[in-house]
Formats: sequence, structure tokens, C-alpha cells
Amino acid sequence: MKIAILFGGSSYEHEISIVSAITMKKVLKNATLVYIFVSSDRKFYLIDTQKINSKLFSSGEYKKSKELTLKNGGFQVDGMFGSKRIDFDVALNLIHGRDGEDGKIASLMEFYTIPFISPRIEASALSYNKLYTKFLAESVGVKTVAYEYLSKNDERKIAMPYPIIIKPVRLGSSIGVSIVKDASELDYALDVAFEFDTDVIIEPFIEGVKEFNQAGTYTNDWELSIVEEPHKEEFLDFEKKYMDFSRDSQVLAADISDALKAKIQESFKKIYDPLFRGSIIRCDFFVVEGKVLLNEINPIPGSMANYLFEDFEGLVERLSKHLPKEQNIAVDYQYIHSIQSAKGKA
Amino acid sequence: MKIAILFGGSSYEHEISIVSAITMKKVLKNATLVYIFVSSDRKFYLIDTQKINSKLFSSGEYKKSKELTLKNGGFQVDGMFGSKRIDFDVALNLIHGRDGEDGKIASLMEFYTIPFISPRIEASALSYNKLYTKFLAESVGVKTVAYEYLSKNDERKIAMPYPIIIKPVRLGSSIGVSIVKDASELDYALDVAFEFDTDVIIEPFIEGVKEFNQAGTYTNDWELSIVEEPHKEEFLDFEKKYMDFSRDSQVLAADISDALKAKIQESFKKIYDPLFRGSIIRCDFFVVEGKVLLNEINPIPGSMANYLFEDFEGLVERLSKHLPKEQNIAVDYQYIHSIQSAKGKA
Repeated sequence: MKIAILFGGSSYEHEISIVSAITMKKVLKNATLVYIFVSSDRKFYLIDTQKINSKLFSSGEYKKSKELTLKNGGFQVDGMFGSKRIDFDVALNLIHGRDGEDGKIASLMEFYTIPFISPRIEASALSYNKLYTKFLAESVGVKTVAYEYLSKNDERKIAMPYPIIIKPVRLGSSIGVSIVKDASELDYALDVAFEFDTDVIIEPFIEGVKEFNQAGTYTNDWELSIVEEPHKEEFLDFEKKYMDFSRDSQVLAADISDALKAKIQESFKKIYDPLFRGSIIRCDFFVVEGKVLLNEINPIPGSMANYLFEDFEGLVERLSKHLPKEQNIAVDYQYIHSIQSAKGKA
Repeated sequence: MKIAILFGGSSYEHEISIVSAITMKKVLKNATLVYIFVSSDRKFYLIDTQKINSKLFSSGEYKKSKELTLKNGGFQVDGMFGSKRIDFDVALNLIHGRDGEDGKIASLMEFYTIPFISPRIEASALSYNKLYTKFLAESVGVKTVAYEYLSKNDERKIAMPYPIIIKPVRLGSSIGVSIVKDASELDYALDVAFEFDTDVIIEPFIEGVKEFNQAGTYTNDWELSIVEEPHKEEFLDFEKKYMDFSRDSQVLAADISDALKAKIQESFKKIYDPLFRGSIIRCDFFVVEGKVLLNEINPIPGSMANYLFEDFEGLVERLSKHLPKEQNIAVDYQYIHSIQSAKGKA
């Protein structure tokens, strides 16, 4: 099977997308990988799978690679003597943050009729925005953490008690996120968050809250990962974050009761189906007083959360055979024909 | 000023988009128009502004026009001796329904860095879906009509009393919409709606409800249209619909109190700002017992609702100078450099 890995993008997470993409070489061992890099100025480059490494990008050497153009049905290389289509069975969207998670890549793939693994446009637009994620969760009966919402030009008034956590509404990977312990720290934290986004979401910071991650997809049936209890630290430094996006070996399942596991999995399924069909996502849950609350949806998790699955490569193959299809719309110009014949009669 | 008109698309409203586009010739008189047609198989064609008429498309003759390719910064014509960029100041998205209203065109324009008039991705994804429109309205404090929601595989049980109106959740222009007077008509109406979409929304059908349309945009200040009370008929036949999408002369303002007008305008502004910045939209409101309820958002209204504005052409020009800009994200590879130097030390 030939899998195109789309990575990079005009995103604050451009670099960790490169790390995620390189990790795929270790976990998709039987597939042939076709690496398609989206530069920060949004050009497409075909990267040699044998030569891929992070320096190729940081040095700018990638610019010597072949540039690709999107055309209906796929990517192509344009040459002196015509164009050549790049051959693959499915594209795997590994662009974290903007472009990959906000619906742009999903739009491009759908518009140009390329089979792809990724949340579709609606799922992207809803999960890229932490406010809309709340709406979505509420609409399918999954509880979330209490919140307030502030736009850049709003009065900086918070009703909930400190400590609070401030998050830019549209970013992942803890970028621009601050924990605010009292009112004296509020302005600075908001300044930081508004550097990255026009809107922020404010939630209570729950000290020592139990956190559990559940990844999964739907192929011809549910394929859910183990439930992981991630190591908690207030903030990850760059090396730990790097570790997180380059993880390639399985971790141990969290030691939780069957009842809690069932609750987490039920919440995951409610969020996922049918909106996220075609994608592999990770949902991060809090458990507070026995209640399961959705914290975040990771629509394109670091290294696709491969380390949570027993047979990640098999799952990707199965999913690529069960992708949602756009409805076929036939345009027959009946309406215009009718107008013309009506005009003809007049 | 040079305005590119994007029209057509893979949409049930492909044909009325052609009608809307041709109407622009009559209302954008001072501008130079560059017509870019999206065929139903999603190829781009440059259409001669002098020759444009509906038959060009229904006959298939458009295929003789020059095909365009999207590249970062614009559309281009590829030729034997290199490529030529198509020159314009702003693109006006006039694709009704899928592709235009679901976020695909907004994604393409943003990805390829082309200035454009249209709802952005989030605004598109939310307003293309009638359920998400409800979420949006509720979140900004605008009331909507009561509703129920059904997916294709759900049990066909409705709690609200008849008569009801059934709408596919993602389509405009009354496609697939039925009024159901009693339970015996329910199955057939649902079958029709599910022909077009996987989900439907069900609302009470309110006999003789007062309906008012408000269009508008935000340039350097609010620019709101007159409030129109549209002519009501259960369904428009094709000639009336054609009239609706080809309207080019101003209509009279509805005869309503200043207080009601203010309520409608306030509701419009709550919905519009800031989500719809960069677009010209029309909101259709119901007034029930003095309360203003949002019925629908028309993110790309027929012929851009030009007939509701006193100075439509001036508005388009002003808007093109006040388009929202994507945040500039600099990628400096600091993170990868740090990993490399950390590795070097190890």
C-alpha cells in the first residue's frame, strides 16, 4: 500500500509535524511512504523517503526537491514535457495546527478528489476551535469543563475563581496556554494568549485532576486504543515535547476499573460518530468525582497516537478502505434548459 | 478595480450560481470582471466576460475556455512557454451550496493566499449546517425556532406536533425541503430529504409567520441593507427562483416599526461579528409574538442580495479594502535546531 504523508504547513506546529512525519517511517513498516511537504509558504514538495530527516527542512535544503501542483485527482510534477501524477492510495494528513486541523487540508483533498485520512471539514472546524468543541460535546451528551470566553476587545473580566487556565481558542500543543493563580497574573497571561489568537477560553485549573487519553477510529467496526493515563507536568519543555511527537513504541494501559473504561469509551464514540469518520483522533478526558468530562479533541494527534494501538499499521490500511465518500452530485443543466425554453416561448 | 467572480461548483445549486454570476455584470458596472468558472468536476475555467451567458455552460462550450491552475498567490494559465498569472484585486465567492458555502472555496483562497469576499472556513462550516447555525445563534444570544434532529439511521420519531417542516441539514434554496401536515406524510418527506443529506432538521411549520430579511457586511463600519419582507409562497417554481437569483434592481423596505427594525439589526450584528468578517451575508428572521428568531443564514445569498443595498458596488469596493487577514506565522526551525544541538551534546 502506498501512503502519502502530508506534513509541515503554515502553522505554529510546523516543526512538530515534521517530527510526527518522520516517526511514521518507524511505525508504517510495510507501506511505501510518499512524503509530501507543505512549506511554511504553502508550496508542496515531494521529499525523498530515503533522505528524510529534520535537518533537510531547518536547512532549507528541501527547496531543491520537486515542487508539486494540485490538480483534480491528485498531485502532479510539472516538467518540460508534460505533467506526471504522483501515485498513492491514500493521503494521511499529519499537519498539526493551522492548515491541517482547521479544515484547509480536508477541503483541498475533497475538492481535488484525493482519498484521505483526516477529519473532514465540519469535524475540523468544530474541533479546531475549543468553544465549538464545547457546543459539539454538549449536543451529543458529553460533558465538558465549565468555561468562560473572551475576545481580544472584550473587557477583561473573569467570573470564575482562581486558579484558572487560559487557552487560545484555536491552538494545540499548549502554545499560548497559561495557568493563572491570581488576578495579578491575569493581564500578562491574556496578553500572551492574544499574541496567538483573537479569542481565548478560560477554564478552572483543577489541581491533580485525573486525565485519560482515548484514541480510536471507525473502520468497518470500532477500533479503539488502550486508555492511557498521560504523565502530567505543568508544561513540557521542548525535549519532552519532541519525545511526545516521536513516540513509536506501545505504552501500558491505565490501571482503571472496567466501568470507568466503558464510560470513557462511550464518550469517545459519541464524539466521534459520525462526524469524525475517516480520521484517527485522540480525545483527552478529565475524570472529576467519577464523571467523565471531555477536555480536548486532538483531531490530528502527535504521531497519530500510534503508540496507543496494538496494530497501528493494520488500522491505517483498514481505515483507508472505509473512508467516507462525498455525495455524487450530477449537474444536468435542466434548470437552465427550462429557462431557455421558457424564454423561447415568450 | 478588478473582481474575479468564482461561480459554478460541485453543488445542487451549480446552475443558480451561474445565474447569480451573470447578474453581477449588471450590478458591478464600474469594475472589470474576471469570470472564473468551477465546473461540476471541479476544474477552473477562465470565461470571457463579453461572451458569458447561461447557454455557454449548459451546452458544454465552456470546455473550450482556458483551464486555470491554483498556485500560491493566484490562478494561472499554463502554456507551452511558461505560466501566466490571472490578475485581479479580489475574488468574490458566488458558489452557492457545496464547495462555496461549506468552506472549500474559503480554504482554497486562504491556502493559496488570494484576497477574497466570502465567509471564512469557520463561518462557512457553521452556517452551512442548520444544526450548527442553531449552536452559533444560541452562543451569541440570538433565538431560533425550536427544532429536532434526525440522522438517516435514527428511528423516525418526531415529538413536536404537526404541521412540521423538514429540511436537509446542509442545503439551501429549499432543495429537499417538505412541509408535513400529518404523520402519514412523514416517511415520504424524510425519504426525499435523505436523498440529499445524511441528516435533517425538523421545525414547527408556523402558518403565516412574518419573515424579514436583513443583509449586510462590516467594512470600516457597519453597512446594513434595508429590511425586506419577502413575498411568501410555499414553494417557488423554477421561473420565480430564477427571478430571485437574477434580481438586480432595488426593492422597497418593509413597512415596520423602528423598534422592530432595531431588533432585527441588532440580531444581525450579533450573528455577523466577528465570525463573518470579510463576507456579505443575508439573515432571514421570523417574528413571532414580537420576538425576533433567526430562521436561516444565507452565507452566499442569491446575487449577493445586491437588490437590498443602495450602493452595492461601493460596498464591494470598500469591503475588498477591509478583509480579515490571516495571522502571519513565522517558522524559524528553532525547535528542530534545539533538538539537533541537544543531540549533538549527547
